[in-house]
Amino acid sequence: MLHEIPPRSGAAFTLDRGQRLTVIDPCGEQVSDLLAFARADTDEVISSGRTLDYLSRIFLTVPDPIYSNRSNIMLRIVEDVVGRHDFLLTPCSQDTFRIIYGDTDPHRGCFGNLAAALAPYGIAPDRIPVAFNLFMHVTVDGTSGTLAVRPPLSKAGDRIVLEAEMDLIIGLTACSALQSNNGRFKPIHYRVD
Amino acid sequence: MLHEIPPRSGAAFTLDRGQRLTVIDPCGEQVSDLLAFARADTDEVISSGRTLDYLSRIFLTVPDPIYSNRSNIMLRIVEDVVGRHDFLLTPCSQDTFRIIYGDTDPHRGCFGNLAAALAPYGIAPDRIPVAFNLFMHVTVDGTSGTLAVRPPLSKAGDRIVLEAEMDLIIGLTACSALQSNNGRFKPIHYRVD
Repeated sequence: MLHEIPPRSGAAFTLDRGQRLTVIDPCGEQVSDLLAFARADTDEVISSGRTLDYLSRIFLTVPDPIYSNRSNIMLRIVEDVVGRHDFLLTPCSQDTFRIIYGDTDPHRGCFGNLAAALAPYGIAPDRIPVAFNLFMHVTVDGTSGTLAVRPPLSKAGDRIVLEAEMDLIIGLTACSALQSNNGRFKPIHYRVD
Repeated sequence: MLHEIPPRSGAAFTLDRGQRLTVIDPCGEQVSDLLAFARADTDEVISSGRTLDYLSRIFLTVPDPIYSNRSNIMLRIVEDVVGRHDFLLTPCSQDTFRIIYGDTDPHRGCFGNLAAALAPYGIAPDRIPVAFNLFMHVTVDGTSGTLAVRPPLSKAGDRIVLEAEMDLIIGLTACSALQSNNGRFKPIHYRVD
């Protein structure tokens, strides 16, 4: 069963150990922020810092694992058509739109959408860490350290598949920031098998 | 008053808004992991993801601010002799030594040292995020994404000074990982003015 996350919104759902999550970019050039919390104890959460350290790499693809803050493997990438995602930045938020875009009436962003979707699972906004930002195309200049957010490399129908290595609560968005998705808000599709 | 953090250990202390924290590498090529929590509510903590996003840069120096997970400025770098620090990796831990070094009886690392030092302030280990790793020299290849931990660029006596923009609890270490400090455990000195 295919689920749709409408433009600028988010969803949360459970994913059992051994299940696979397929995230599809139906229109192309759209980003989806992914969070994962351990169902047994939601204080265990994906950790960019642990994952990048253990992989010695900032870009992830097949068959890379995503580690938790307790150094356990939460998810593993088992299929990846696009091969470019971001694991450096936090979800866009009211503050992102205020600070980076100068908006006077800022949208709640992926952060607000994730916080709302995760609230029924008892997960507080302060528990939202750096997300694994699917299809997000961030370049890094190794000399100056400059980051740039580029249009995603994903084309319509491109997908990534992740397999759960523990029982999880997943947060997932259709990204709300124009910089991330080349200036047009689009939906995200996902499926759990 | 100059304080010494002995090799492979850590400390925690308060820093008032307007006060300056000077961290000195007394022997050269040593790393110090820095954490900051808001004293008013320790659920507010430094955020690599917010800071790198708002700066559009992975390397920080004068006069860069360090943002919290709530997008408030916690600290600002006001003096920086070395100019190279890391804000990508979590503190080294038992798991780091197990996974990266293959140690059978792993040290608790900066993570364990920070957890112990922060416990009297009611801060749980799961609340430890990516640290701002002073003097840590991590290179990033922008094409492959490969990370490498190199010897710090700090020479004996080099310092960094940060000013608090809110009342804080600081966690600080003399790093426990041989990769980070060019193979020799050394102390760290600090001062609060």
